[in-house]
Amino acid sequence: MGWSLSSCSKGKAEVAFPERVKIVEVGPRDGFQMETAFIPTDLKVKVIDLVAEAGVSKVEATAFVSPEVIPQLGDSHEVMAGIRRRPGIRYTALVPNLKGMERALAAGVDGVRLVVCATETYNQRNVGMSIAQSLEVCGQMLERAEPSGLPVEAVIAVAFGCPFEGEVPEDRVVTLARNFVVQGITELSIADSVGLANPVRIRRLLSRLQEEIPDIELSLHLHDTRGLGLANVLSALELGIGAFDSSIGGLGGCPITQGGTGNISTEDLVNMCHEMGIETGIDLDAIRRASREMERFLDRKLPSHVLAAGTREELFARIAASARS
Amino acid sequence: MGWSLSSCSKGKAEVAFPERVKIVEVGPRDGFQMETAFIPTDLKVKVIDLVAEAGVSKVEATAFVSPEVIPQLGDSHEVMAGIRRRPGIRYTALVPNLKGMERALAAGVDGVRLVVCATETYNQRNVGMSIAQSLEVCGQMLERAEPSGLPVEAVIAVAFGCPFEGEVPEDRVVTLARNFVVQGITELSIADSVGLANPVRIRRLLSRLQEEIPDIELSLHLHDTRGLGLANVLSALELGIGAFDSSIGGLGGCPITQGGTGNISTEDLVNMCHEMGIETGIDLDAIRRASREMERFLDRKLPSHVLAAGTREELFARIAASARS
Repeated sequence: MGWSLSSCSKGKAEVAFPERVKIVEVGPRDGFQMETAFIPTDLKVKVIDLVAEAGVSKVEATAFVSPEVIPQLGDSHEVMAGIRRRPGIRYTALVPNLKGMERALAAGVDGVRLVVCATETYNQRNVGMSIAQSLEVCGQMLERAEPSGLPVEAVIAVAFGCPFEGEVPEDRVVTLARNFVVQGITELSIADSVGLANPVRIRRLLSRLQEEIPDIELSLHLHDTRGLGLANVLSALELGIGAFDSSIGGLGGCPITQGGTGNISTEDLVNMCHEMGIETGIDLDAIRRASREMERFLDRKLPSHVLAAGTREELFARIAASARS
Repeated sequence: MGWSLSSCSKGKAEVAFPERVKIVEVGPRDGFQMETAFIPTDLKVKVIDLVAEAGVSKVEATAFVSPEVIPQLGDSHEVMAGIRRRPGIRYTALVPNLKGMERALAAGVDGVRLVVCATETYNQRNVGMSIAQSLEVCGQMLERAEPSGLPVEAVIAVAFGCPFEGEVPEDRVVTLARNFVVQGITELSIADSVGLANPVRIRRLLSRLQEEIPDIELSLHLHDTRGLGLANVLSALELGIGAFDSSIGGLGGCPITQGGTGNISTEDLVNMCHEMGIETGIDLDAIRRASREMERFLDRKLPSHVLAAGTREELFARIAASARS
């Protein structure tokens, strides 16, 4: 019995994805802050320079928080002073309050991100304020930023569930988002801070936000705690969400509880996009050089799959090369 | 400034997923065969009994292959003899040829799976036959199975790319599938044996197979080499694919090349389904007991996320319990 190749008609099921996504590298903030060993300032600078060279849209380079609370980021000013600013790359910082914002401005950031948690307990533990107080801070920050036009972005943390309060009603996230828009926020990051989202929740919350609050640019911040990170990305891509946070090698976690593991890895996210024909503008090699610097310093393997296994394209290039030789 | 909860209308974007999926536990075959340390027969039996107790639809309990080629599975007859057969669970085995099938029948399997690779090179290395020869074997197996009505399932391996030949044309997979149907195969597993699929390729190939070969029950066998395992599952669920292979803890790999890592983990797959409201009939606890048996024996952590982090529901139950105390 033989068998033969026949030409068949093309399948029709197609889904529209964004042609291009923006990737925000948060390893230097979300990743570094989780490490107990102090990462030397020059290594931080080197890693940031590498991810900028790789072509990410934005780098969350550090946070301007109390050095007593997060000693790892106590050198935020020196980090900002040390990096080689590449044109076209936005270097941003996380700030919890107006004082942090002043320090960030003095250090020359291109934008600031303010985190407000979707639950009172988490917000208290994170920044020692009520949600209403954090929203007040947001208003002050926007006012402070206005003369210079500095972008102020808001982050809604624990948007898919809280390790202290449990379920987070979607209505609360939508209402918080609406408050931000009223205040003048134009970029909003929805954060699954401890990895409690799933593709259905992503679709439900993000599509509601798109419908009810159309005048805002949404991005997504995901952790891979339950292995659903890239499935959640897929769900968001299907809605046309075009911006994602990720961290080199999958560094990261949650400083407040043990409930969260690393962010989705930049390598795996970039590879997924490229595999799906979605542009990122990112050169994986420079990202992996940054991750390997961190692996050397931390003396452990980072969780990124593509960092370990390489891409399909690389595998096929090796096959082609060995066929020629 | 304050903020308040307001009731908002529900988002409309909904995708239809299958209400229930079948999960085939392949750890005892695909996982075990990758381990160099010989897993004692009684541990194999214990693990199989645990996953059956957990309620998987099918267990790929072993393979009837040459013990010289895969010494780890040299005790396949003893394994089949040792397990406690639970009603409603199908215990199947991989067989490469008619001789293997005879041994499998003698050992009392509930069904056999025949692997045929989508590329000649991989098929030669895997079973020492051409694809045409493997298809001939398939015909003989179906003939042999007919009197007893034993289910014979076919697997198309390296359907999304081959570590020796590179790209695999979709047409070739579709044609192979068509050949199987003509032969009388009713259950077909499409295998991404070394982790080269992505959500777009999954959608394209699987939707073509659904359209062009409607009279076959499709299932998907995925490896998580590039971290895309569960994103690929999501893509398949959106097409209504309702059966997936996975392995406890994410055991597994590819015996022929170093190019592949573990299967998608049963814990992570079950959790994803349950989180999305899709029934599996599986009790995660028994699955995790099986994985922990393997972690103890292998003396290493397995890659499953949910094995390490637990589920969202479990986290929330702990929160509720500590609030009561």
